[in-house]
Amino acid sequence: MLDEIAAKPNAWNHRHLLDVDDFSPEEFQLVFETADAMREILARPIKKVPALRGQTVVNLFYENSTRTRASFEIAAKNLSAEVLNVTSTASSIAKGESLIDTLKTLEALGANIIVMRHNLSGAPHVAAKYSKASIINAGDGWHAHPTQALLDLYTIRKHKGNLNGLKAAIIGDVRHSRVAHSNIWGMTRLGMKVTVCGPPTLLPYGLDNPGGLFPEVRVETDVEKAVEDADVVMALRLQRERQQSGLLPSVAEYVRRFQVSQERLKRAKSEVLVMHPGPVNEDIELAAESAYGDKSVINEQVQNGVAVRMAVLYLLAGKQGEL
Amino acid sequence: MLDEIAAKPNAWNHRHLLDVDDFSPEEFQLVFETADAMREILARPIKKVPALRGQTVVNLFYENSTRTRASFEIAAKNLSAEVLNVTSTASSIAKGESLIDTLKTLEALGANIIVMRHNLSGAPHVAAKYSKASIINAGDGWHAHPTQALLDLYTIRKHKGNLNGLKAAIIGDVRHSRVAHSNIWGMTRLGMKVTVCGPPTLLPYGLDNPGGLFPEVRVETDVEKAVEDADVVMALRLQRERQQSGLLPSVAEYVRRFQVSQERLKRAKSEVLVMHPGPVNEDIELAAESAYGDKSVINEQVQNGVAVRMAVLYLLAGKQGEL
Amino acid sequence: MLDEIAAKPNAWNHRHLLDVDDFSPEEFQLVFETADAMREILARPIKKVPALRGQTVVNLFYENSTRTRASFEIAAKNLSAEVLNVTSTASSIAKGESLIDTLKTLEALGANIIVMRHNLSGAPHVAAKYSKASIINAGDGWHAHPTQALLDLYTIRKHKGNLNGLKAAIIGDVRHSRVAHSNIWGMTRLGMKVTVCGPPTLLPYGLDNPGGLFPEVRVETDVEKAVEDADVVMALRLQRERQQSGLLPSVAEYVRRFQVSQERLKRAKSEVLVMHPGPVNEDIELAAESAYGDKSVINEQVQNGVAVRMAVLYLLAGKQGEL
Repeated sequence: MLDEIAAKPNAWNHRHLLDVDDFSPEEFQLVFETADAMREILARPIKKVPALRGQTVVNLFYENSTRTRASFEIAAKNLSAEVLNVTSTASSIAKGESLIDTLKTLEALGANIIVMRHNLSGAPHVAAKYSKASIINAGDGWHAHPTQALLDLYTIRKHKGNLNGLKAAIIGDVRHSRVAHSNIWGMTRLGMKVTVCGPPTLLPYGLDNPGGLFPEVRVETDVEKAVEDADVVMALRLQRERQQSGLLPSVAEYVRRFQVSQERLKRAKSEVLVMHPGPVNEDIELAAESAYGDKSVINEQVQNGVAVRMAVLYLLAGKQGEL
Repeated sequence: MLDEIAAKPNAWNHRHLLDVDDFSPEEFQLVFETADAMREILARPIKKVPALRGQTVVNLFYENSTRTRASFEIAAKNLSAEVLNVTSTASSIAKGESLIDTLKTLEALGANIIVMRHNLSGAPHVAAKYSKASIINAGDGWHAHPTQALLDLYTIRKHKGNLNGLKAAIIGDVRHSRVAHSNIWGMTRLGMKVTVCGPPTLLPYGLDNPGGLFPEVRVETDVEKAVEDADVVMALRLQRERQQSGLLPSVAEYVRRFQVSQERLKRAKSEVLVMHPGPVNEDIELAAESAYGDKSVINEQVQNGVAVRMAVLYLLAGKQGEL
Repeated sequence: MLDEIAAKPNAWNHRHLLDVDDFSPEEFQLVFETADAMREILARPIKKVPALRGQTVVNLFYENSTRTRASFEIAAKNLSAEVLNVTSTASSIAKGESLIDTLKTLEALGANIIVMRHNLSGAPHVAAKYSKASIINAGDGWHAHPTQALLDLYTIRKHKGNLNGLKAAIIGDVRHSRVAHSNIWGMTRLGMKVTVCGPPTLLPYGLDNPGGLFPEVRVETDVEKAVEDADVVMALRLQRERQQSGLLPSVAEYVRRFQVSQERLKRAKSEVLVMHPGPVNEDIELAAESAYGDKSVINEQVQNGVAVRMAVLYLLAGKQGEL
């Protein structure tokens, strides 16, 4: 399979990975097949291939994230890239250095790919305009998190084969969730039927408006109805600051009305996949027994994340290296 | 010697290294002999062997520590492992992610060995229950610090050959010292006679109680008597917060009564080894001239730490790699 | 050229790199030629040579710096060294560990070269007295920043060939600039004519005093005169704290009187090089259009920094490794 992937004509058209909103179904397919090949590498005793040898991948994180940074770092090292971690706490970014200046510097230092997390929506798009290095958006504000969507879709595909026609319920703070936004783009593009559910204050305005971005998305405020007959139930992390900012009257009320519980999951299909981008607030947005139960694929999401990120790095690097 | 170690039937029975309290004398011996082999590697111009190639070692540090983290990082890299540093300041641990969730994530990302420092006593034992990766306790609260004890014992053995019958005096804040606790387990198991000495408020309750944990440990509040005829004098770091919490009336008083000084060391054996886990508060718990004098083996402790940690990593990884 | 460099008799006389004030013109030349060789390596698809394989380079940073730390990290990794990052925020340096103790520990752990940034002027010189490892000063207080000066001089040499007789204007907070100080040593040693210019409160006392350190340096408070006929105009970063400490009445006034602008640059030679150590406060000490204009070599400075640091690491390691 590795040979096949390396030999395939390149359907990949992106110099950067900013979101999945402009992905064709063929591009999704290419990422999935490349990730399949990367999983073969991950199954070996020594998980290292020379594909990106001599290339430098920079993790430029303006927000902390154990999971995403570690996942990219491991993925890049598995491909033999050099990894440089630059975080806002451990660097002089605090000195008031401009984003563009930082990017120019990283390029001049030899960065080939810059994995960037930023608290401001759109920052990676600005970066991409000025950067000769490839930018991967590892999460920007409330906007997008494309590699998370790709690994979620890949995880669903591993279990269900074809995504077309599957029903997904995304439950929680959809309004502020870059994970939800990128998943909605990907799921709808690949033919899935998406229902979002949460308190009205945490749902985007006009999501299912006929003239809106996602006319095909169903909005539901009753969680029992939302999960009905679902193939996938994705719970979103509830940020405590939503309560402080007055968008959420109480956590107890949220739990009562929207928690994804074992009881509520009975309404979904019997083979439902329970997903969460992590880290889980146990027994808040997701019951602990559901998070660790037999329908949960949360750990697989993390595992697949490494394979999907290896695939993305490999494709952005032009597939020129040896696998 | 490398071939011998690699060929030896494995007396190592641990999937994790949480403390040395359950080590048999044979296991201590195996660690020491494996560390001897690692010192051979460290004496080469290129100190790198492929033993752990393809394995990922994570340094998961909830407390900062230059020394211990750096020592493990160097040890792991010498064995060709990939090293991932996850610290509480540089990660989203602060977000309130649970320890178990973090461990599951690190495992799913591919961690084989997790080196863990935690401010709570017992945290690595909890971790070990849930973790498929091997856990190494790199210090938990006031409880245990097994690799420090192993490197201390190894350093004594390098100088004295056999540990059986040697006399050690451990001076200072024994109550709150994980280093002291692990050393007491190891020293007594290997036949050493241990005396602990310090202000009563900084000594454990009932340490030498006949029905207590360490009936063979002698407690002494007179430092002159404690160091009398000692083969090893180990001074412990005095944390300034002990004074703030009222356990220590004054640092000046501590210095006067308990400092390990050149004068006091004259009462020990002429070949006494002066030890300290570092970093030393110079002229507080240990006189600067004693810390840097000819009896001091403090730098050797640090050096041996790399060899001992290489040994532990190699043994936990099942000795399968090539040396 | 790589063979030539490796074969050349070693004119390098330093065990440490603390400043360039004691460099002979031949040593500057050796660094430049070695950096030329390193640029050849950087032009390859795989930028990695085995020269420092098995050596450990520690970045010991008591002050944050994205640029300098990243530049050294990449340089060291290109030479196949192991890199260990120890920063004051991510380590127990905060615990009050003494500098000497930290150095002894790093040495015992196996450090061969310690790249050190410290907020106190002279700290690397103290370190060098006690350290068996080679110390590279990566910036100490207001004192020196030798690798920055070397990369600046190297960048000028790439454009101008010979440095002898060239005119440089250094504009800004010269008093508190380690970059300026090291550049003045290097420039004057290599025959350049240096003019410094800035508000009197930000210029060193007695710089051009006939009995002073740099009698050959011209001091000028009129920026138009300072840049007149210059081959090189180097703007220095203006630290905001200068205003807080009363040394600068207002930023607006500084901009009006001292900003390096397109208009002012017209007075310099038509082939003038615009330089800045980065990060630039755009439109403060340097106009954005000048920073990103066709006379700017700021990005080249960053690029050359990697080559120059590779050269320095290679020379300090005794040129023994394979290129």
